[in-house]
Amino acid sequence: MWPDTPIVRLFGCDVPIVQAPMAGCATPALVAAVSNAGGLGSIAAAYDQPDAIRAQIKSVRHLTNRPFAVNLFIPTAPEVNTGKVSSAVAVLAPWREKFGISGDAPALTMPDFEAQFDVVLSEKPRVFSFTFGSLPRERIATLKSAGIIVAGTATTVAEAERLEADGVDAIIAQGSEAGAHRGGFLAPFAESEIGLMALIPAMADKVRIPIIAAGGIMDGRGVAAALMLGAKGVQLGTAFLVTDESGAAPVWKKSVLEQYYDSTKITRVFSGRPARSIRNEMMMALEKHESGLPGFPALNVLTRAIRSAAGRSGDAQALSLFAGQAAPLARAMPAADLVRKLAAETGQRLDEGFQG
Amino acid sequence: MWPDTPIVRLFGCDVPIVQAPMAGCATPALVAAVSNAGGLGSIAAAYDQPDAIRAQIKSVRHLTNRPFAVNLFIPTAPEVNTGKVSSAVAVLAPWREKFGISGDAPALTMPDFEAQFDVVLSEKPRVFSFTFGSLPRERIATLKSAGIIVAGTATTVAEAERLEADGVDAIIAQGSEAGAHRGGFLAPFAESEIGLMALIPAMADKVRIPIIAAGGIMDGRGVAAALMLGAKGVQLGTAFLVTDESGAAPVWKKSVLEQYYDSTKITRVFSGRPARSIRNEMMMALEKHESGLPGFPALNVLTRAIRSAAGRSGDAQALSLFAGQAAPLARAMPAADLVRKLAAETGQRLDEGFQG
Repeated sequence: MWPDTPIVRLFGCDVPIVQAPMAGCATPALVAAVSNAGGLGSIAAAYDQPDAIRAQIKSVRHLTNRPFAVNLFIPTAPEVNTGKVSSAVAVLAPWREKFGISGDAPALTMPDFEAQFDVVLSEKPRVFSFTFGSLPRERIATLKSAGIIVAGTATTVAEAERLEADGVDAIIAQGSEAGAHRGGFLAPFAESEIGLMALIPAMADKVRIPIIAAGGIMDGRGVAAALMLGAKGVQLGTAFLVTDESGAAPVWKKSVLEQYYDSTKITRVFSGRPARSIRNEMMMALEKHESGLPGFPALNVLTRAIRSAAGRSGDAQALSLFAGQAAPLARAMPAADLVRKLAAETGQRLDEGFQG
Repeated sequence: MWPDTPIVRLFGCDVPIVQAPMAGCATPALVAAVSNAGGLGSIAAAYDQPDAIRAQIKSVRHLTNRPFAVNLFIPTAPEVNTGKVSSAVAVLAPWREKFGISGDAPALTMPDFEAQFDVVLSEKPRVFSFTFGSLPRERIATLKSAGIIVAGTATTVAEAERLEADGVDAIIAQGSEAGAHRGGFLAPFAESEIGLMALIPAMADKVRIPIIAAGGIMDGRGVAAALMLGAKGVQLGTAFLVTDESGAAPVWKKSVLEQYYDSTKITRVFSGRPARSIRNEMMMALEKHESGLPGFPALNVLTRAIRSAAGRSGDAQALSLFAGQAAPLARAMPAADLVRKLAAETGQRLDEGFQG
């Protein structure tokens, strides 16, 4: 049905439609449903300990024998500022109280990347994707010689050129439209918010490896547009966030589906790193204290229990409602139906050409 | 050649390709060249006195009998803050000295909108486009009953809905990728930076009138993508800025053509209103004083003589280098060639479909 393309060949899927790795949403059921339907599901493993990653991979393999991806975050220098951590604890106290959260926060760190990486290397998913930086060339070469396809995330042309030079097989080009964390790593974040309309053709002229467009793509119109711009595939987060198999809290799905347009904002107050989210009370309240709040991952850990509790209790105002700029175009349905619908809509849109 | 589409019918052109109104660039020669080649040229009349607007329209009509547009800015409440004006004068003094500029600045105001509007109404260009707000419904009705097609500029879905309710014939949807001034008027500017990949389909689902996509579109890939997203036409600024007939200073054209990717930024320090420009020394220096600088149009008038002198003397560091995010994809050529090339590339791209 779909033409034989570089991404389809690289990833071993039927259609070049990738489900974005979304922490808390990308359940094994979602990953497997996308892959079984011919797309590429992605396990969001960045926040997980090695054993949990291994368990997730096992769960996915129990549900599908199709290719899938595992995504990790490249470690960034954590900001250690006890004054800012204390400020955050004080600022967050009313929310902790509201949801009855007591006890100390867990360690303000990420799981050990080396141990996470070793799990990927030994489990050999078809695709390893990474975000927030690049990997040493030897690491990428090691993955590739283990038969793993490697995809890096770029928000600028310069980042794409760097990733290609480092040896990745494909680039995930994250446009400014995209929900959740910004993946930039070479320039200041504010200088790395480039819309896909500009980013994809500029990048396609500068790198030879295939580009996967991510950001604001919700239906066949967006997929067709991305392909016209020169992308060879697409990655969708928000569109899969609302599917039946997604682990997103019901209040998060509801917020995405029911909000009005023009309601997202890039903020660093949920995690310490800029991420696009639907505006709500917690965002607005924390932004008043923004300059005093710590960086990633400390702030992410500090807000986590509150965000989880808000999700459980259905409180949309105390949750990080990560979503892209086209969130209201999201459609709730089983993930496999969405993969098939996207492929069909794209084919139809391209066949129609320009009808005016 | 091009299918019969709503925009082609409305504007009376052959292809739905609009040259964006660009102050200082949209010479009568450029406007006429675009219109003669089958697109729609636009006179950038916002900063001009009524007599000058009338003279420009006459010049364009001397060069073409094809339809063209005249663009004006909807008046915004000017910020009158003598303290900030004094601060700006002090901050700008070294540049004035550098370029040997003496004497007082002219009045820190825009030309009278009512008088500008009367020229448009009496001269009856085929299309009147406006930016920075909406017009009272009676005004739009008056224009339409005079046989003038009316197009408003929107940066959000909410703005497009407002413009449609006010009675415009078409919406120019300005994505966050676009160069020069942001056209938003309902929400804070920072909340109105939406990439076209998200903006166009969301807007197309909410308004019935045709949408013209603007921002980051530089070649047939971008035009085809915009059409796939649901736009019925495109408006290009930066792409026409570097054409032979453009009045942009040679150093501005050179900066657009030779800069690296990822080098633009939205700043308010050149005019008092957020506008996307290539980063240079003046931008960086003025941003250090940003909170103390006055708003539009005062700051625009205060910096104008410096920017003009820098343009004349070929100093790229003291000029407002307005440009969109895909600026390096710009191609220098006669404007008519660009119109024809864009149409041909778009047709080819759509005919190819997805080849992988």
